[in-house]
Amino acid sequence: MGTNTRGRQFCVTSFGESHGPAIGAVVDGMPAGIPIDTAYIQAQLDRRRPGQSALTTQRKESDEVEILSGVFRGLSTGAPIALLIRNRDARSQDYDQLEHVFRPSHADYTYHTKYGIRDHRGGGRASARITAGWVAAGALAELFLRRELDYEACAWVNSIHTLSWDGHPDTVTRKQVEASLVRCPDPELSARMEQAIAAARDAGDSLGGTIRCQLRGIPAGLGEPVFGKLQAELAAAMLSIHAVKGFEYGMGFAGSQRRGSEVNDAMEAGADGIRMQQNHSGGIQGGISNGAPIDFRLAFKPTASIARAQETVNTSGENILLETHGRHDPCVLPRAVPIVEAMATLVVADMVLVGRG
Amino acid sequence: MGTNTRGRQFCVTSFGESHGPAIGAVVDGMPAGIPIDTAYIQAQLDRRRPGQSALTTQRKESDEVEILSGVFRGLSTGAPIALLIRNRDARSQDYDQLEHVFRPSHADYTYHTKYGIRDHRGGGRASARITAGWVAAGALAELFLRRELDYEACAWVNSIHTLSWDGHPDTVTRKQVEASLVRCPDPELSARMEQAIAAARDAGDSLGGTIRCQLRGIPAGLGEPVFGKLQAELAAAMLSIHAVKGFEYGMGFAGSQRRGSEVNDAMEAGADGIRMQQNHSGGIQGGISNGAPIDFRLAFKPTASIARAQETVNTSGENILLETHGRHDPCVLPRAVPIVEAMATLVVADMVLVGRG
Amino acid sequence: MGTNTRGRQFCVTSFGESHGPAIGAVVDGMPAGIPIDTAYIQAQLDRRRPGQSALTTQRKESDEVEILSGVFRGLSTGAPIALLIRNRDARSQDYDQLEHVFRPSHADYTYHTKYGIRDHRGGGRASARITAGWVAAGALAELFLRRELDYEACAWVNSIHTLSWDGHPDTVTRKQVEASLVRCPDPELSARMEQAIAAARDAGDSLGGTIRCQLRGIPAGLGEPVFGKLQAELAAAMLSIHAVKGFEYGMGFAGSQRRGSEVNDAMEAGADGIRMQQNHSGGIQGGISNGAPIDFRLAFKPTASIARAQETVNTSGENILLETHGRHDPCVLPRAVPIVEAMATLVVADMVLVGRG
Amino acid sequence: MGTNTRGRQFCVTSFGESHGPAIGAVVDGMPAGIPIDTAYIQAQLDRRRPGQSALTTQRKESDEVEILSGVFRGLSTGAPIALLIRNRDARSQDYDQLEHVFRPSHADYTYHTKYGIRDHRGGGRASARITAGWVAAGALAELFLRRELDYEACAWVNSIHTLSWDGHPDTVTRKQVEASLVRCPDPELSARMEQAIAAARDAGDSLGGTIRCQLRGIPAGLGEPVFGKLQAELAAAMLSIHAVKGFEYGMGFAGSQRRGSEVNDAMEAGADGIRMQQNHSGGIQGGISNGAPIDFRLAFKPTASIARAQETVNTSGENILLETHGRHDPCVLPRAVPIVEAMATLVVADMVLVGRG
Repeated sequence: MGTNTRGRQFCVTSFGESHGPAIGAVVDGMPAGIPIDTAYIQAQLDRRRPGQSALTTQRKESDEVEILSGVFRGLSTGAPIALLIRNRDARSQDYDQLEHVFRPSHADYTYHTKYGIRDHRGGGRASARITAGWVAAGALAELFLRRELDYEACAWVNSIHTLSWDGHPDTVTRKQVEASLVRCPDPELSARMEQAIAAARDAGDSLGGTIRCQLRGIPAGLGEPVFGKLQAELAAAMLSIHAVKGFEYGMGFAGSQRRGSEVNDAMEAGADGIRMQQNHSGGIQGGISNGAPIDFRLAFKPTASIARAQETVNTSGENILLETHGRHDPCVLPRAVPIVEAMATLVVADMVLVGRG
Repeated sequence: MGTNTRGRQFCVTSFGESHGPAIGAVVDGMPAGIPIDTAYIQAQLDRRRPGQSALTTQRKESDEVEILSGVFRGLSTGAPIALLIRNRDARSQDYDQLEHVFRPSHADYTYHTKYGIRDHRGGGRASARITAGWVAAGALAELFLRRELDYEACAWVNSIHTLSWDGHPDTVTRKQVEASLVRCPDPELSARMEQAIAAARDAGDSLGGTIRCQLRGIPAGLGEPVFGKLQAELAAAMLSIHAVKGFEYGMGFAGSQRRGSEVNDAMEAGADGIRMQQNHSGGIQGGISNGAPIDFRLAFKPTASIARAQETVNTSGENILLETHGRHDPCVLPRAVPIVEAMATLVVADMVLVGRG
Repeated sequence: MGTNTRGRQFCVTSFGESHGPAIGAVVDGMPAGIPIDTAYIQAQLDRRRPGQSALTTQRKESDEVEILSGVFRGLSTGAPIALLIRNRDARSQDYDQLEHVFRPSHADYTYHTKYGIRDHRGGGRASARITAGWVAAGALAELFLRRELDYEACAWVNSIHTLSWDGHPDTVTRKQVEASLVRCPDPELSARMEQAIAAARDAGDSLGGTIRCQLRGIPAGLGEPVFGKLQAELAAAMLSIHAVKGFEYGMGFAGSQRRGSEVNDAMEAGADGIRMQQNHSGGIQGGISNGAPIDFRLAFKPTASIARAQETVNTSGENILLETHGRHDPCVLPRAVPIVEAMATLVVADMVLVGRG
Repeated sequence: MGTNTRGRQFCVTSFGESHGPAIGAVVDGMPAGIPIDTAYIQAQLDRRRPGQSALTTQRKESDEVEILSGVFRGLSTGAPIALLIRNRDARSQDYDQLEHVFRPSHADYTYHTKYGIRDHRGGGRASARITAGWVAAGALAELFLRRELDYEACAWVNSIHTLSWDGHPDTVTRKQVEASLVRCPDPELSARMEQAIAAARDAGDSLGGTIRCQLRGIPAGLGEPVFGKLQAELAAAMLSIHAVKGFEYGMGFAGSQRRGSEVNDAMEAGADGIRMQQNHSGGIQGGISNGAPIDFRLAFKPTASIARAQETVNTSGENILLETHGRHDPCVLPRAVPIVEAMATLVVADMVLVGRG
């Protein structure tokens, strides 16, 4: 399997570069007979689209998706679904000065070293722009899962820089999240986050933060020990997302400072069946879902692109001082929310299908 | 590919249960002509073996590995190497009382729900005992990598409960780590950690902690965007390990509270080539190694097995109070150190081979 | 890995239907730095294109390929190369009468039964039209292999119906093959084959035949026992091609009637190294190439589409008599020659890359 | 996925060499809750076992299988099932003279060239002895399939050298086949085949032949276009078997000399549903089963090991004359029958599971 494909049964092959003709994905494994709601797919792409607000990159991309195959009379046929998104507003000349420069904490140096050739325009293959294809694929996965489960992926910005939300995750709704420009469930905190991002942008700087995500409606039994554990699949999917530097589920790192007697999830049987009294485990035990919401958090580093002078090296191996003024997001987290949901949904759809076999 | 196999080119298939006849692994993809130092493999297994000290489970297993195939006159032949470790000291009767009980925060309930049948003896397939096979496989991977690179995986216990070490990672040696019963580089802190574990054990409780790991000697260029990124492969491997609840690399979660101007890794060219001035990125950019040490941290939850009464449910769906007194580790971290190194080394070996293709 | 992807390291994902918006392929695993000769890719597509002569379907498709990604300044970048071919001359109305009918020896009934939904237009996903994407991908594989080896895939029509060529395979050239409308190396036989095909067409009937293929310039050592044997990979690739009903290599079925003393390939060492005195083995022993040309033959059934009344069944389960008059090839073999070469070349490219790991 | 593993969901990893400590297989993907009839597995191994008659190698191996994992109280648990068969009667000294020799039409030269090292004892990894593990795995697959379908794989020797059977395939029973020492359904022909094999053996020679196989009880809908077509999966599995040089299904090569009007499978609807009037297609259309028996034939070359002087080369690159007198089968076909059935059954089990996803 190529390294640009993920999934065992619900498989997504990603292609494209930031300034090439197009980006996209091929989804192989979509069961037949699923209504393909193209408006819903487009709506998810719109959530990820650049230029949504003053806080994001000003690149203008409509990100309209064309379905090239696998759909007949509005239904999936079981054949691969190829998704195509043309690049429209690539200003490649903006990157001319970067052709021979390795930007700090970008993938310029590593791509150059690995491949010996690098499409430097807009980050090339390393650009987060390619996640548009992932979001479209994730929307297809969601259309499939909706038929199977009362499934919902709900992610939100839990912190930006030092501004952190501490509300209860179980009650957050996607509607609440979408009401916020930064996609934080708390309106007041949301406003402060907006200000912090704007301030960082104006200072030529960038901010990191964390996203929390819940996957709801997954019954006990999803996940494939010992190398297809649900948390391992989620971690790999999440660490594929640009700028993600950490993944934890359940109590995560905080739980490492606790005692077993404090964090074990006591179980109880009731009229509705068996349930965990708490969800310290984050909905997974032994790599398999336990019926509680899957609950995980991601650390995002601050955007590597900043408008300040930085020491770095060029392709001739000379030390230089770099100053750039491209279009970029001073904080990637708001737009990353639908990407996180999409990738998580791809994992769930795949695990559902694998679990049938 | 089965869900008990990991790797694209250096592939490990895991098998076995805690109280079955044997556990083991088949390594497929070991290049031919590598000297197979069985003493080294056994030495790694001894680091993971139970019964090393009063702080670990008292199950007595010599964990002697038999190589069934793939080696001829001390050299690998290119054929699969099957590794067999017999279970010797399984006291299955100790688990009779657990046959119809779901232990809190164990995989009992999820396995039961998923498979409809569960080998309850010693945790069955969900037992961490199966990691012996992974450690043996990881030792093979290391024997391969040594021929290619000046490679070393060095992991250590960075914290137990609230006791945390804050030394510099680059200078930690495996020797230093092995000198400590809990595998923490700091002798004084190590003694305090031992006491904390012993106290938890005596109180019928358990402790969590963190392990930090450095992978050294990896040149720039390892990793396969966009779904075989080095951090994604490492995260999946690490989240496959029992009790691991979180993975972060480079600045990880702490970096999410910082600004780009603070954490970007400035680059500089010198006589030895290009290097990062710091290693906030943890040795990876865009999914590809950058030549700096790969640096990551793992959160382990406290052992789920505790000797205290816990509310739970039995297989008849009745609420019960469970008290158990089996053999288990009050803190898994010291024995997890070689497992972390082995899994990381499997990832590196695989990525090295994939990168050749 | 999805079932529309083939390859371990040089991976091709196929998509598209006969009458959908487009067909194509994503090639993942193309090494970086290979010059992408688009004219050569197009030339291969032109060899497969419909409408080349009166002996093929009259559907008019230019089959122009657009490269969507993975190429920068004429060189491969190591990123996936997406290949897009628009469908231009789909006359879907021609298939209206077939919407509710299962054509004999077509995939109509099996697709209908498997998926519950079927794009009946032009055979939908089951159409051989999708092999255009394979041919384009195979051309990319060839561009890669040319850099590595003095490689050539040379296939030709060895028989049509009962007209069979018995010349020596080692001297056949692609030029010789292309000089023939039916792609048979013998001009005189070629003319008789043309007549046979035209006669079958005029009689509303169709003809089968065999294709022989040689892969030249492959050194000893290619192939991966025991489940990636070269002949197994080739067989799977060939049996993926529409209408192929048999695969044999070396002496194949004829060799089953011989004695070991007759067919064993005696070896001899000379100034140029070791070689086989004959090539009864077809260039492979134990799943690994032995340095002689890889030599295999394929059986193609006669085209299932014929213009005669046939007994069959409709989707309501009624027995009917079917007469069709669509555009189709009365004999698929001439156009299958580049498809065979392309699929074989994909196998070789993949095995070359896997063998490095 | 390693090249010693086959299958997407029902996965078999093969290991072992002819004269190593053991051979075996790990089956990953066996659904949970299947009764594991070890006597049945052993019975299948006994059908493949050497030393069954004077016509086979006289190596004495009981081929007792030990199940190391994945079975609890007689039922599969969903965990990998490791199967171990010890080598008992390896007479490695018999092969001393072959250490530095490349036997004609064996894998000696190709393994040597590919790996640089070769376990020459008994053919090492290239020995057909490893198929014992495949047969055991196939028996597990059959135990699974029996629960799902009224499935049967029935293979037989259809020809030995020029002695060929032309009976109707649909009525052959496994019982009938097992009644014959050479596993040909016709008792009279069977006797002549025995004589032919004995004569070849006495002449220091060997014979080839063909095996035909029917897979019965498979409903329409099995197989995964376009790269997991049923015939492609079967072909790959069959071409993995030692000495197989050709695969054809349905009318195969004979059909290439026919007209469409002669070979199209007319369909008819009746009380029992839809069926093919003939089975020229061999039970598959468009890569998917059509409900008729899957019907294929395999060409086996004569055993490469013969007791006659042969021209060949040694590892020093010198031309030599080789005479060998090891233990081997003068005709492999009788013992290959259960191997063919096992490999076919592995394909079917895998496709059944993949088809669920």
